[in-house]
Amino acid sequence: MTYNFSSGPAMMPIEVMQGAHREFLDYAGSGMSVMELNHRSVLFNEIVEEAKTDLKDLLKIPDNYRILFLQGGASLQFAAVPMNLMRHRKAGFIMTGHWTKRAFEEAQMYGEAVKLASSEDRNYTYIPDCNNLSITDDLDYVHICENNTIYGTRFIELPDTMGKDVVSDMSSCILSEPIDVSKYGLIFAGAQKNMGPAGATIVIVREDLVRDDVMPGTPSVMKYKNQLESNSRFNTPPCYSIYMCGKVFKWIKKIGGLSAMKELNQKKAKMIYEYLDESRMFHGTVDREFRSMANATFTTGNINSDMEFVEESKKAGFVGLKGHRFVGGLRASLYNAIPVEHVEALVKYMKEYESVRMRGAI
Amino acid sequence: MTYNFSSGPAMMPIEVMQGAHREFLDYAGSGMSVMELNHRSVLFNEIVEEAKTDLKDLLKIPDNYRILFLQGGASLQFAAVPMNLMRHRKAGFIMTGHWTKRAFEEAQMYGEAVKLASSEDRNYTYIPDCNNLSITDDLDYVHICENNTIYGTRFIELPDTMGKDVVSDMSSCILSEPIDVSKYGLIFAGAQKNMGPAGATIVIVREDLVRDDVMPGTPSVMKYKNQLESNSRFNTPPCYSIYMCGKVFKWIKKIGGLSAMKELNQKKAKMIYEYLDESRMFHGTVDREFRSMANATFTTGNINSDMEFVEESKKAGFVGLKGHRFVGGLRASLYNAIPVEHVEALVKYMKEYESVRMRGAI
Repeated sequence: MTYNFSSGPAMMPIEVMQGAHREFLDYAGSGMSVMELNHRSVLFNEIVEEAKTDLKDLLKIPDNYRILFLQGGASLQFAAVPMNLMRHRKAGFIMTGHWTKRAFEEAQMYGEAVKLASSEDRNYTYIPDCNNLSITDDLDYVHICENNTIYGTRFIELPDTMGKDVVSDMSSCILSEPIDVSKYGLIFAGAQKNMGPAGATIVIVREDLVRDDVMPGTPSVMKYKNQLESNSRFNTPPCYSIYMCGKVFKWIKKIGGLSAMKELNQKKAKMIYEYLDESRMFHGTVDREFRSMANATFTTGNINSDMEFVEESKKAGFVGLKGHRFVGGLRASLYNAIPVEHVEALVKYMKEYESVRMRGAI
Repeated sequence: MTYNFSSGPAMMPIEVMQGAHREFLDYAGSGMSVMELNHRSVLFNEIVEEAKTDLKDLLKIPDNYRILFLQGGASLQFAAVPMNLMRHRKAGFIMTGHWTKRAFEEAQMYGEAVKLASSEDRNYTYIPDCNNLSITDDLDYVHICENNTIYGTRFIELPDTMGKDVVSDMSSCILSEPIDVSKYGLIFAGAQKNMGPAGATIVIVREDLVRDDVMPGTPSVMKYKNQLESNSRFNTPPCYSIYMCGKVFKWIKKIGGLSAMKELNQKKAKMIYEYLDESRMFHGTVDREFRSMANATFTTGNINSDMEFVEESKKAGFVGLKGHRFVGGLRASLYNAIPVEHVEALVKYMKEYESVRMRGAI
């Protein structure tokens, strides 16, 4: 048995994988795999339209927002967002870890990037206070990373941006719970954590932000307007990843939508954090208040013991428990697809592991 | 029975699809799908390394060239190439159709794009003479599209660029026959025609062209140096598409490499072109000398008859025979994966179709 707690690419829902496996060689009686469908064919068009409709349903996306299926990952959006949205060449950033740093540095190539708040002082183990930000009128938007995959923190409420559009990197938390899309200007997310296989990137953007006057030198493929006008097919899209995302959307709907998803995710997170709080061997690494529902970061407090746990747990079938190379320690990613039983198995294993080691230590 | 002659995404080799189907849910006994493997895992690293080695073997890529697996399609390369290579802000273009026009227009955003030759006068039905091009010393490179998917032409020899680096868009002909990579500065190709599912883009570049001084504003993901230094994992790559490309590389090796592939491709092209030359109903649309081995374009000479053929042939299982929306007419794409028997079936069907219609016309 394999328990995949990878931070992404990550485990996919078992039911989705089984369904995709069944129709892998022959999709909808076409005699072709989805991989072999022309991106302008009727069949593939249906796949895109259904995926859009299902995503819209799940997130209750208002009518004045548009959905784009793109390529390049969140990292390419770090450039695409300023290229498309930074009209006054100035944007604000809430610095909560590696990925906001990357987005901040990328934006500096295109204009002025302003740090509005930061939790760098305590190695990003909390979310900074965002109630009295120095929002100036010339800011085009405020960028946040809503869930910090590496550090294991998440925003528990959106920052007060005084009316400025929030741009949110939701790569590791999209579709994990209901959100109010109307509070955002733009949401982007790489597919490979909570939606589908790596290769697709989803952008949800309020339509008035999709404009013609992008920055000079914006690659045509990265111009939202081009992609919107061609229904995400300005050029050949990552068809198979989009198809798999669509299957995941249907799976979430079947489970009961985002409220049901949230309940399951809370349950999983509670299981692991409760154990971490009582453990004498492992402890969580971030402020409790800001603990991520998707990425539980923890440590024994000792590098060697952490590595030993990674190696030992591998033998028992646990994959992906090593913390990100930038922070070390341990991490269990608890995305939508991870069954409750897998988290139960992990907690059980950790308890036994602790019990054996602690006896040994006495 | 389905006969998929799509221009891309296109048919995949049957054997490759069957192999991928077998290991879809459990790759190499890992208990995980390739889609679920972390991109920095040992298993996925092996997939990338093997794909690189096999591609290097197949194309006999010299040691001073590097292979990158990227995202965004050939269209994103239309921007990435000038951003990385246009140091003197000037590049030459051989205009042979829609895709060179797109590349030309994109390059104009970053510097001076010079038309060195064009076949626009006869709607791109031939490859212009490239022996006495006005190559100036300040040109950074010369861009060509080696096989023109839409029009159905291909270069039969490389242009004389007087020592300037050739940048070749090989999306629809890569791996269809042996080439001498050392004659190129950079080759790029979207995967979705001759390699694998849409989503991966392959760049083969001479290492001295991979430099730090790219154009200001080049997105970090698009900077070749970043991708080279991180072994195509500057950010999460399109893992599953890369894996499928790797399987296709192994399949070509098993068949006998690119010489064997070329023989099969020539055989398929000969079958269809010989029939077109003798047909009273259908005729090829480009100059014989420059006929593409990958995309056979033809027409009845009448829009309605062309459309009727598309509709009728569909009923017999033939998919993707409609010409590109920009040129109309008919097209059969004969990429590596298309079995000889499928082309036989197409020619047989066309002969019967012609025979019935011609009888009706008398």
